[in-house]
Amino acid sequence: MSTIADVAARAGVSKATASRALSGGGYVSDAARTRVLTAASELDYIAHSSAMSLATGRSLSVGVILPALDRWFFTELLAGIQDELLASGLDLVLYGIGEGTAERARLFEKVLPRRRLDGIIAVGIQPSARELERLVQVDSPLVSVGAYREHTSAVSIDDAAAARIATEHLIDLGHRDIVFLCGRADAATHAYGDEQRRAGYRSAMTAADLESHIRFAEGAPTMPGGYEAGVRMLGDRQHRPTAVLAVCDEAAIGAMIAARRLGLSVPAELSIVGIDDHEHAEMFTLTTVRQQPRAQGRAAVELLRQHIKAPDAASVQRVLPSELVVRASTAVPRA
Amino acid sequence: MSTIADVAARAGVSKATASRALSGGGYVSDAARTRVLTAASELDYIAHSSAMSLATGRSLSVGVILPALDRWFFTELLAGIQDELLASGLDLVLYGIGEGTAERARLFEKVLPRRRLDGIIAVGIQPSARELERLVQVDSPLVSVGAYREHTSAVSIDDAAAARIATEHLIDLGHRDIVFLCGRADAATHAYGDEQRRAGYRSAMTAADLESHIRFAEGAPTMPGGYEAGVRMLGDRQHRPTAVLAVCDEAAIGAMIAARRLGLSVPAELSIVGIDDHEHAEMFTLTTVRQQPRAQGRAAVELLRQHIKAPDAASVQRVLPSELVVRASTAVPRA
Repeated sequence: MSTIADVAARAGVSKATASRALSGGGYVSDAARTRVLTAASELDYIAHSSAMSLATGRSLSVGVILPALDRWFFTELLAGIQDELLASGLDLVLYGIGEGTAERARLFEKVLPRRRLDGIIAVGIQPSARELERLVQVDSPLVSVGAYREHTSAVSIDDAAAARIATEHLIDLGHRDIVFLCGRADAATHAYGDEQRRAGYRSAMTAADLESHIRFAEGAPTMPGGYEAGVRMLGDRQHRPTAVLAVCDEAAIGAMIAARRLGLSVPAELSIVGIDDHEHAEMFTLTTVRQQPRAQGRAAVELLRQHIKAPDAASVQRVLPSELVVRASTAVPRA
Repeated sequence: MSTIADVAARAGVSKATASRALSGGGYVSDAARTRVLTAASELDYIAHSSAMSLATGRSLSVGVILPALDRWFFTELLAGIQDELLASGLDLVLYGIGEGTAERARLFEKVLPRRRLDGIIAVGIQPSARELERLVQVDSPLVSVGAYREHTSAVSIDDAAAARIATEHLIDLGHRDIVFLCGRADAATHAYGDEQRRAGYRSAMTAADLESHIRFAEGAPTMPGGYEAGVRMLGDRQHRPTAVLAVCDEAAIGAMIAARRLGLSVPAELSIVGIDDHEHAEMFTLTTVRQQPRAQGRAAVELLRQHIKAPDAASVQRVLPSELVVRASTAVPRA
């Protein structure tokens, strides 16, 4: 079986350089890294993680904290994180735990402090003061996706802008009575960017001199949640809006199904916009603001790797683009 | 900071027993385990994973190999695995990698052999001879979910029975022209139990002296896949079936949306059944055969823990129940 010395010799570098190249930690020139990886592959070199870990002080593992596994945004994000970690030779240690649960408290109090992780990606969470204190004690490089605090590196879209663009699209079409459909403010903070989105909707409405109307789905804004809120809201002929902006595509699609079940034609009698570009948005011909959670996941890993290499580097808030995709669920309102 | 000796003393057990109780490896009586965990909690004892690992030879990590992260069945299963691993104090190392990819080959050739894992849960995969050989070399306890080979422990439902029950429900209603809608046989084997389901459909049709008709969605049986296949199949008035059994609820819901778009009334003009009881099945009033992937995930961890404790124990194939749930998408065919 080949040793790291064999790999170093074949690549023409020192053992220390070969080790850095294989572990991904510390500076190695791109040329040297390529030579080392090629040599390792040719020699069928397999580093044993515990030996590697003892030698480098690294676990080659990144912890990923997710509030839910059953929502499109989170699974897409996870897929992006997974792809990029695999490409970096890092293991993904998954902590898919809802906020406000006993398991969640245990994660921050007992589990994370005793695990050696090279870094942590915290998704869609607004760490409480206590959670944040614990994360700082763990002393691993940290990148959050979505919410962030000062001095924490983060990846997100501009949620307020996304909602503003969607609202302006409806206003431009001639709508005046536009409802914003979102999850309960007091529900677990699944939809981490919801507040910013609501603010974006409000600012567009205010700028056009229109009154804001917020409607809440029970709990998190899921497809069934949007459906039920849609039935309640659209069943009332007197106070039916001409357009709905939903906080995410799942809720928008739920509202669209509710409209159809009530015999309302979309978009002739009701325009609907979402935010996401969910994998089903095209099938439902939903107008939406596209964000790309897979790209956000990959960007989070990239940022984390920079912090692993340079733990004292300044924190970075990386904002990824979003864009309006107009399909057949929005039109000028009926005269 | 408390040591394991402090915990052992408080619990009134030996250090070795305390270590076994905390690591979950080897036999400890339930009473002793409870005392140790209570003492550890009272003393705020935090075991460091690397020290724990050196002491016990265990990594306290379980690898989970999943072919996809963006399908309901897999994310639900993952949630069940996650819950049970957390409760067992074990980390979940996620390898979400599609079959037939370069990353997949690398996982089996390079990544798994160099990682120390206490066990592996392989989901929905039919390991190739080469993959299996590698898994055996890794020499970790292994439990598969869905497909299995002899001498491998596995958790699944009886896929053939699930499809047979659904088909018999349609036959009992009076349907004679029943189509089975599934993914392409040559697509990545996402839908690991599809073949057994198809066989179950066929056997029910044959037993009733009816002709089998299989229709394929492009690629995997997703909601858009079921929609497109539905449009093709239902657009042809001459050869339209009176009922459809889809291999999973996502494809069934897609076909239902296609029917509505074509102006076909469900169930008056077309009955549709799925298999899963997907989280959206109720909203679409879909008749389906319920399986519970979260329970399957928890059962897989339970089985794996038994193999970790007793590596030489015989392999077990655990079959979990499924049941027909009749909603409003099926009815007697039009005269």
